[in-house]
Amino acid sequence: MATGPDGQNELENIDLNPAKKFAEELRGDPMAGWLTVPVDRAELLKIKQTAEAVNQNSEYLVCVGIGGSYLGHKAIIDALIPKSKTKILYAGNNLSTLSLKKVLDEIDGKDFSVNVISKSGTTLEPSLAFEVLKKKLMERYKDEDRVKSRIFATTDARSGALHDEAEEKGYTTFVVPDNIGGRYSVLTAVGLFPLAVAGVDIDKLLFGATAEKDEFMTNLAKNSNVPSELAPLSYATIRQKYHGKYHDVEILASFEPELQTLQEWWKQLFGESEGKDGKGIFPASVIYTTDLHSLGQYLQQGRRNIIETFLKIPLEGYNDIAERATIAAHKEGKIPVFEIGVKQLDEENLGRLIYFFELSCAISAKIQGVNPFDQPGVETYKKNIKSML
Amino acid sequence: MATGPDGQNELENIDLNPAKKFAEELRGDPMAGWLTVPVDRAELLKIKQTAEAVNQNSEYLVCVGIGGSYLGHKAIIDALIPKSKTKILYAGNNLSTLSLKKVLDEIDGKDFSVNVISKSGTTLEPSLAFEVLKKKLMERYKDEDRVKSRIFATTDARSGALHDEAEEKGYTTFVVPDNIGGRYSVLTAVGLFPLAVAGVDIDKLLFGATAEKDEFMTNLAKNSNVPSELAPLSYATIRQKYHGKYHDVEILASFEPELQTLQEWWKQLFGESEGKDGKGIFPASVIYTTDLHSLGQYLQQGRRNIIETFLKIPLEGYNDIAERATIAAHKEGKIPVFEIGVKQLDEENLGRLIYFFELSCAISAKIQGVNPFDQPGVETYKKNIKSML
Repeated sequence: MATGPDGQNELENIDLNPAKKFAEELRGDPMAGWLTVPVDRAELLKIKQTAEAVNQNSEYLVCVGIGGSYLGHKAIIDALIPKSKTKILYAGNNLSTLSLKKVLDEIDGKDFSVNVISKSGTTLEPSLAFEVLKKKLMERYKDEDRVKSRIFATTDARSGALHDEAEEKGYTTFVVPDNIGGRYSVLTAVGLFPLAVAGVDIDKLLFGATAEKDEFMTNLAKNSNVPSELAPLSYATIRQKYHGKYHDVEILASFEPELQTLQEWWKQLFGESEGKDGKGIFPASVIYTTDLHSLGQYLQQGRRNIIETFLKIPLEGYNDIAERATIAAHKEGKIPVFEIGVKQLDEENLGRLIYFFELSCAISAKIQGVNPFDQPGVETYKKNIKSML
Repeated sequence: MATGPDGQNELENIDLNPAKKFAEELRGDPMAGWLTVPVDRAELLKIKQTAEAVNQNSEYLVCVGIGGSYLGHKAIIDALIPKSKTKILYAGNNLSTLSLKKVLDEIDGKDFSVNVISKSGTTLEPSLAFEVLKKKLMERYKDEDRVKSRIFATTDARSGALHDEAEEKGYTTFVVPDNIGGRYSVLTAVGLFPLAVAGVDIDKLLFGATAEKDEFMTNLAKNSNVPSELAPLSYATIRQKYHGKYHDVEILASFEPELQTLQEWWKQLFGESEGKDGKGIFPASVIYTTDLHSLGQYLQQGRRNIIETFLKIPLEGYNDIAERATIAAHKEGKIPVFEIGVKQLDEENLGRLIYFFELSCAISAKIQGVNPFDQPGVETYKKNIKSML
């Protein structure tokens, strides 16, 4: 559902044709590998078997990665709270010595393995954390062979610093595909290996994403004009319509605190895909009802430059009532509101949601006139830090 | 320091006179009680003695409150990570049954007390959680007298549902002053009691805020025109200058994950004070370097409608270099940048920072032409939820 500031149904007079054209265009894009939800059967089997071995011998798996290398799988784990013998921890996603120390304290004296996730192997944060964790592994397991059996490298198939180290030392490796960028990579080995270790049913996750894709592609092929049948195109078209009208903040709202990392994943996906050439909707997030008592005032009566997208999962009792009351209040406050329904918070429906957002995002960036798959702006910071080191 | 989009020093040609006039005006405002950092000696003594008793008999203190009733003290505790015999937990700050269950599981079989913080006692979230926690207390301690000795109510001095219940049942009470609103209340009993229990040196915290106030008031009295001597006015003046130029998002950036709740407190303070009458800068936050790999691209090259305020604490090694590299990169990206220095992450300097932000915020709202102390917009949601219940 999409409601404009005056309560009108935005889906009524929507023109999906530009978005359809971009969806067709996407098929030929060398960075849209995620579009077909590709699954390499041999890689998937290796992921599952390796995950099982890690479950047998490790109380912890420390995932070392930043940005697209950790947000997607952490999002799913936090949303599902799966029960597994192995607990997933995260390192190398900041430069805080305190954060790293907490991880080292938690694994101290315990059995653990490390999954380092980096296309190049040269990103500063994971590189530093990986060095520390290799020392910790050596301290605990003493012997090089035992250490290397506990390191799993998810990296480029053919080249790069991490690829080369993995080959030299003999780590088990998984592949970051060349045609899928970090922020679109959660349904590749980048996300699937830690998810499998965490006890997430990755077959169901992939099934959900594939089902979402199949339904979309079928409706696209029959040239549907029903907005709900091409929901990713509808969402992309309407948000860009508001972007054109100086709505420059989009808030992803949820009533379940466990969805916070999913919101962070969404922020990277959209912010990094669209924030370029002086354009883009700034992505923000809120957790209700907590943030009703903080940003609620702004949303109700502040500058009318906001779009609000509600991630609607089945809620219990008061929280369900609060959701309805909030959506109604913000519509009264003349905020354009999207409502994205998630039938159940389970693997299948999260797979669907991920595919929905990835496709919407790529189309939305194309409507905006920017490349959904590059991130030229991060170079300035990297150049500065290199010159300072 | 304040740098405009073309690298110019914003402090050079600043006119502080309008802000000075508003600072004078503030003294007469019936809701600016926080302006003088008032300390009731008897209340302070009672807070410390009660906190000591809680430290003796409780492994946990569960704070029940939402918005301004919990964000300020949680911000300080998360930033300082004090060591105390008593661990602070939070409840009643959302409607998630899962969140409440986690708290109940953690305190199960342990000695605990409850601090319920609510001016009226009728806010939905804390009311519901308080009922559950009272049952939990009765389950564990069996007897009414033992239960009531473990409940501390921070509420209105004279009336309201919680005041009346506290009086009837005989809970120990602390006062939410009439002339200080929730988002400005952290340096009253609202924050001071849980902080004292957590092992924070509340004298030093109050000393810092008072020192910041005294220095400011002295400089105001001598009619200084040195921007750094009236830093809250400088910050307020410049951010409103950019607000007038359609910069409608301000990002509070930090390189230390432990400052995240402080950023949330800041978001409520500014968002709720300024977001009204169709105006206001939308407050957002980032934790670097994590978010450089997520929102970094947008900040570098997205829509130029952003102000970025760096909360600069002393950092170690790589994190310090990353901070300098980021500030330089975002200046190159033509973002107006504020740099707010915090000498040490300790009680005194956090007290100073809190006062700095509260004063800046009140002045900034007044420059914007709105009341810094009301929140009329939250009524729509409350009205809706009442009609649905």
